[in-house]
Amino acid sequence: MKKFTSVKDIPSIEKALATAFEVKNNKFGFQHLGKNKTMVLVFFNSSLRTRLSTQKAAMNMGMNTMVMNVNEDSWQLESEMGVVMDGKNAEHLREAIPVIGKYCDVIGVRAFAKFENREDDYSEKILSQFVEFADVPVVSMEGATRHPLQSYADLVTIEEHKKVEKPKVVLTWAPHPRALPQAVANSFVEWMRETDYELVVTHPKGYELAPEFMGDAKVEYDQKKAFEGADFIYAKNWASYNDYGQILSKDLNWTVDEAKMALTNDAKFMHCLPVRRNMVVTDGVIDSPNSIVVDEAYNREITAQAVLKMILEDK
Amino acid sequence: MKKFTSVKDIPSIEKALATAFEVKNNKFGFQHLGKNKTMVLVFFNSSLRTRLSTQKAAMNMGMNTMVMNVNEDSWQLESEMGVVMDGKNAEHLREAIPVIGKYCDVIGVRAFAKFENREDDYSEKILSQFVEFADVPVVSMEGATRHPLQSYADLVTIEEHKKVEKPKVVLTWAPHPRALPQAVANSFVEWMRETDYELVVTHPKGYELAPEFMGDAKVEYDQKKAFEGADFIYAKNWASYNDYGQILSKDLNWTVDEAKMALTNDAKFMHCLPVRRNMVVTDGVIDSPNSIVVDEAYNREITAQAVLKMILEDK
Amino acid sequence: MKKFTSVKDIPSIEKALATAFEVKNNKFGFQHLGKNKTMVLVFFNSSLRTRLSTQKAAMNMGMNTMVMNVNEDSWQLESEMGVVMDGKNAEHLREAIPVIGKYCDVIGVRAFAKFENREDDYSEKILSQFVEFADVPVVSMEGATRHPLQSYADLVTIEEHKKVEKPKVVLTWAPHPRALPQAVANSFVEWMRETDYELVVTHPKGYELAPEFMGDAKVEYDQKKAFEGADFIYAKNWASYNDYGQILSKDLNWTVDEAKMALTNDAKFMHCLPVRRNMVVTDGVIDSPNSIVVDEAYNREITAQAVLKMILEDK
Repeated sequence: MKKFTSVKDIPSIEKALATAFEVKNNKFGFQHLGKNKTMVLVFFNSSLRTRLSTQKAAMNMGMNTMVMNVNEDSWQLESEMGVVMDGKNAEHLREAIPVIGKYCDVIGVRAFAKFENREDDYSEKILSQFVEFADVPVVSMEGATRHPLQSYADLVTIEEHKKVEKPKVVLTWAPHPRALPQAVANSFVEWMRETDYELVVTHPKGYELAPEFMGDAKVEYDQKKAFEGADFIYAKNWASYNDYGQILSKDLNWTVDEAKMALTNDAKFMHCLPVRRNMVVTDGVIDSPNSIVVDEAYNREITAQAVLKMILEDK
Repeated sequence: MKKFTSVKDIPSIEKALATAFEVKNNKFGFQHLGKNKTMVLVFFNSSLRTRLSTQKAAMNMGMNTMVMNVNEDSWQLESEMGVVMDGKNAEHLREAIPVIGKYCDVIGVRAFAKFENREDDYSEKILSQFVEFADVPVVSMEGATRHPLQSYADLVTIEEHKKVEKPKVVLTWAPHPRALPQAVANSFVEWMRETDYELVVTHPKGYELAPEFMGDAKVEYDQKKAFEGADFIYAKNWASYNDYGQILSKDLNWTVDEAKMALTNDAKFMHCLPVRRNMVVTDGVIDSPNSIVVDEAYNREITAQAVLKMILEDK
Repeated sequence: MKKFTSVKDIPSIEKALATAFEVKNNKFGFQHLGKNKTMVLVFFNSSLRTRLSTQKAAMNMGMNTMVMNVNEDSWQLESEMGVVMDGKNAEHLREAIPVIGKYCDVIGVRAFAKFENREDDYSEKILSQFVEFADVPVVSMEGATRHPLQSYADLVTIEEHKKVEKPKVVLTWAPHPRALPQAVANSFVEWMRETDYELVVTHPKGYELAPEFMGDAKVEYDQKKAFEGADFIYAKNWASYNDYGQILSKDLNWTVDEAKMALTNDAKFMHCLPVRRNMVVTDGVIDSPNSIVVDEAYNREITAQAVLKMILEDK
């Protein structure tokens, strides 16, 4: 595996699952692969789970790690080509990326959507420059449009908790005080579509995800109807794609609560975290035994390690 | 040892001292205990000594370390239960803590008193949630009311420098431009009361420490009288407990200077650092041969390592 | 080697070059020297290359590393002697430095010129206190007046790319929107003067470097004339030394462009990075095959490692 930026980069869902479970059963068994290898984690945005789980995964593999917060540690970085750099950005990605690549064997990078311009975000302006200019494999720690490490962990978590071969998985929009990227939702849909699960996406009108991610995935605008018979409820807020970056609703009728969970087939509750309690989900649901958000977060370490194992085996 | 948040968590003063000296004589001799183990250090507040000494201690034990500054690296964290999270805090401690615990074997956390509300601070609102919600041992890197890693190092330092079996140890309040927590003072009193040293606390009226920490410890409002015959002078500023968080005095007559040190039994000068020179203590005293502040700081590494050794041996 | 703050600290140019090439050919061959040794990297200023390359170098040597950003992680540090510390600075370097030294075996420190006062900067007020008060070797990761890790990497890069025994090396001033320290330029001149290369410095009038760095190095105020026959063009902006810290010119006629490069002997283009594209150098030049800025940056890891090897061998 030469990079990990979307589900298209993994050899197959089967290989991804097998590697994850292999790693989970033997976390410290592959350190020969990482010996004297270094991963640099570059953060353009805040991070808790991704920061810790990816570092931990690299250390499990016997790798060294270096973490760089672009905003606090380093220079402001320019991403536009051809500009006269007379402003606040002191360094261009065109130099920064190959230089970072020289000091390590794998780069992880987190660069969220900026919501200034849909074309910039959906072309993955920053992440794609990392892939282009680094001489080493690049792992997305969440780009502008996808969060594949999250989706991979979501997949493993569903596999571990499913009671039927082909569970009904519902991705539901939920209200939030801020405008959030579509990355987690896009990526979740993209990964689920590679499985034979039954996927339903539910959200208010106006919150349709980008067609290239949705494909023929089923949309159900009636949240309660969507929840009927569900085995997994995956809650997530996102801002509008069509009315790009806008908050069209903060309607608390979309909050995942106990009454709605009662409509499901004793569904497990999932969320990528961080989650706004009593906006996205009630305390009652997230604190219930059916909430598997912490298991899901723990699988972030496992799948990040599986990604690194597949990358290092390929080197 | 399952956690380290106060003197009550150590098996005994004797065991604590023995472990510290064992570690000091053989810093790299216990790495089998830490192999493939990870400590996460979570900072809600600034840190120099604690940051470096605790990381170093973990590395001495053969552990991996990850450091997270909550304010710069991560999401703002909510600590209130039951709230609708529609404000600036993006994640609740109720998720963040168990998730962090999943990625490591020991959590260190620093969360100072906020001085907004005495009840919140004295219930250790943040630290106690870490102890409750993490599935792994928690080490206080300074809470709202105690700084046990500091007090443990203070104890070891006194043991190393004392010339008599039961030295006279004086904790003296000293002026400072800012309102500082009582944590170091509370904790120092708490630890000293477990020894058979002679403890005297001196401060201006109004600066009485909380009764649960002071117990029957002796107070002497006349600083010069307190200093007479002292073997150790431990200087520290703190804001008022009764008039909670207020600065009642910046009286430079309470600064520890050469004239006052001359009243002692050739006392050693101690301070946890950082120290405001010529406010808390004069240059002359802190730069004198009797100043042992750097030795004291070095023992932070030793006692943090001793804490980790006791925790890892118990796992 | 007891410290590394200028070219005067290395045993000789020959030994420095031999050690760099030895390390480059065997990056992981000296880990016995660094086992159970720790380097602390203290940053008063931003850093990308220095941060990553120095950490990587220490890890190559088998060392542990700890990174501290003074402004975000720690307390504001006081550097003046004798002051009453009643302001914003919570800790004095007089305590912070020996304490940091207690937790590690080598300290790296970055402390740029502040441009408040030339005497303060040119006395290396912060770096010199580190050298004085730490009990362990200090490595400059760029001081107020020198950047020796950069210059050492520049030297190695020139050695690797030179086609003649004694190449003509031209240091050229170039425009920049901000006032930058003279450190890189001073240091480059200082190191080049230790070689038998032909060195020419070119800049607008008023940008003369400090006499103690320039010595008898040749100045040519006509940039095009300076470029004639050059084998290496080293571009860098700096603010005025005589009119201390002032920007006297942003004249884009000093930008290094294709036409000027055509005057040279097929010269390689060098810059320490970060570089302002289309201010200091045109896209055409920095993206050309003759640009060796990434090789130069990579040598930062190599020479930092060579410095650590020489220090650890001496311990």
